[in-house]
Amino acid sequence: MTDSTRAPEREDALTYDEAVRGTENEIKRQLRSTPAVISRLTSHLSRAEGKSIRAKSLLICAMGRDGLIAGGAVKTAAAVELLHLATLVHDDIIDDADKRRGIKTLHRKFGEKGAVLCGDYLVCMALELASSTKPPEERRKLAPKTLPGYLTDVLTGEMRQNRNNRNYALTERQYLKIITGKTAAMFEACFHLGFLFSDESEACMSDYLTIGKNAGIIFQLADDCADYESTARSSKKPVLSDYKTGVVTLPLIYALKSDGSLRDRILGGMTPRELKKAVAAAGGLSYTHLKIAGYHKKTLALISALPGLKNKKEKLTALLDRAAGMPAVR
Amino acid sequence: MTDSTRAPEREDALTYDEAVRGTENEIKRQLRSTPAVISRLTSHLSRAEGKSIRAKSLLICAMGRDGLIAGGAVKTAAAVELLHLATLVHDDIIDDADKRRGIKTLHRKFGEKGAVLCGDYLVCMALELASSTKPPEERRKLAPKTLPGYLTDVLTGEMRQNRNNRNYALTERQYLKIITGKTAAMFEACFHLGFLFSDESEACMSDYLTIGKNAGIIFQLADDCADYESTARSSKKPVLSDYKTGVVTLPLIYALKSDGSLRDRILGGMTPRELKKAVAAAGGLSYTHLKIAGYHKKTLALISALPGLKNKKEKLTALLDRAAGMPAVR
Repeated sequence: MTDSTRAPEREDALTYDEAVRGTENEIKRQLRSTPAVISRLTSHLSRAEGKSIRAKSLLICAMGRDGLIAGGAVKTAAAVELLHLATLVHDDIIDDADKRRGIKTLHRKFGEKGAVLCGDYLVCMALELASSTKPPEERRKLAPKTLPGYLTDVLTGEMRQNRNNRNYALTERQYLKIITGKTAAMFEACFHLGFLFSDESEACMSDYLTIGKNAGIIFQLADDCADYESTARSSKKPVLSDYKTGVVTLPLIYALKSDGSLRDRILGGMTPRELKKAVAAAGGLSYTHLKIAGYHKKTLALISALPGLKNKKEKLTALLDRAAGMPAVR
Repeated sequence: MTDSTRAPEREDALTYDEAVRGTENEIKRQLRSTPAVISRLTSHLSRAEGKSIRAKSLLICAMGRDGLIAGGAVKTAAAVELLHLATLVHDDIIDDADKRRGIKTLHRKFGEKGAVLCGDYLVCMALELASSTKPPEERRKLAPKTLPGYLTDVLTGEMRQNRNNRNYALTERQYLKIITGKTAAMFEACFHLGFLFSDESEACMSDYLTIGKNAGIIFQLADDCADYESTARSSKKPVLSDYKTGVVTLPLIYALKSDGSLRDRILGGMTPRELKKAVAAAGGLSYTHLKIAGYHKKTLALISALPGLKNKKEKLTALLDRAAGMPAVR
């Protein structure tokens, strides 16, 4: 789309590709413009390559009926990625992880104190950035939940996960409650905020929220499978890190249910390699993939039923495929 | 002041004492209404008694010409105390402190992971609370800096302090830069936010900001002295905790400058008791008290020159005395 087709009041609006690039630049700009004592740490973070799936969700949802995205959505998209980055920095301290996104974790490179403070700094920086650009006045009444409010859901989910560390009696239902907070709340926030920047009708807001939440659940379940499936070479994260850090995820929950002897074998001491085999043999991975497929199908139907641009719905579908870990073939 | 004297448009306005009680209740309510998995931790925090000097600063500054305080200021005052509490929770992890405000620190009672997440949760909860109640529309243009923005200054100060851990070459100038962020930025935020809720003229806003910043510097310097002066019995915090955790403060900076042999004696190994004596003997405490007196005098003059209620100015003066560690005799 060229500038000549833009309505005069949409002069600062961007194409999707422009908005994605703008968001990446805004994130790097933010990370590199901190005071010197912090920028040693935040500049390190700016070298990592994230997938920015949250920012992209927001930008796709923000697309207007003219296919363009309001300039303000870019800053908000950068803010949600920075918020996500903040939670990663603190998670890595909690899990004492070595690497993240292909680079050394912050607390390993700069010490725990610095990493705690830097995570806090990123939260504030992100919320300040988000508050510097608001959706249009008339859309704000559609935002009963604020970005900090969504973040408290994420943290509640993380706290629940932490509390259930090495709890081999965790049920699927409890686990879904955990990830609905931990991962899905932030996706829902992105879909919500993006929607507010768009001109889609109020009537479809709740569908956007559900699609966002489901995309988050799908994303997390696919990540859970990858932890049991990928090899150290193919993954930027350590393999079987969930098991090593005591995080009980759906593949393991299902395997524990279907293989009655697994719990005792784990407690007796199993190598990660042995566990990997046992979870697959007990059907934990197949079951989780089936779950993902179920959410995927349900959510695709919601996307198809949305009004609006074909291009926007295609982008939402591609995003969902990507969350599910499918190769980008569409 | 009784209700009968209130203007009709100030029906929800409160007296200072009502506002202080309201703030305390709001803080406890917030800490006790978190989801179950978090409330184990936040309820523990709600048992501690803080001085709430930041909340009180905000409420005093929010006082209108009728001596009353807008209801919205109460939630904002609760929010700044919760933000402060969040920084304490993370500080205690960083310093591995045992006790705070007379009770066991969170990470000691619930583990580090929980404390990191709980601190994050408090930040979000506080910012959500603060965003739920805004100063009147026409005053908002007077707020170029947001609460998250002030918090980034606090964190930058903490990061600088962390970076200068056991740096015995730290200068007074560098130290003042550290505490201007670490402590004074949050006081300035309180004075700023309080001012926005008041009906004081725009012309005196910068004086309010300066008084707030100075009150913060005074408060920190008095705290630095107390660390060298108090006994374990009289203090709710461990004595000489700064020295033990490597935090270099003004009494020590001055002592190092005036006693050329002190640095080598510290590096050679000194007991906290020996250091305490040495800092006093080298004039570190007297010098810091003189500094406090200087700021105190300068700031009192600013308060006197303010327009407005005698009662409000008396309260600001009493607050300043309290920050300086003076017994409440006025």
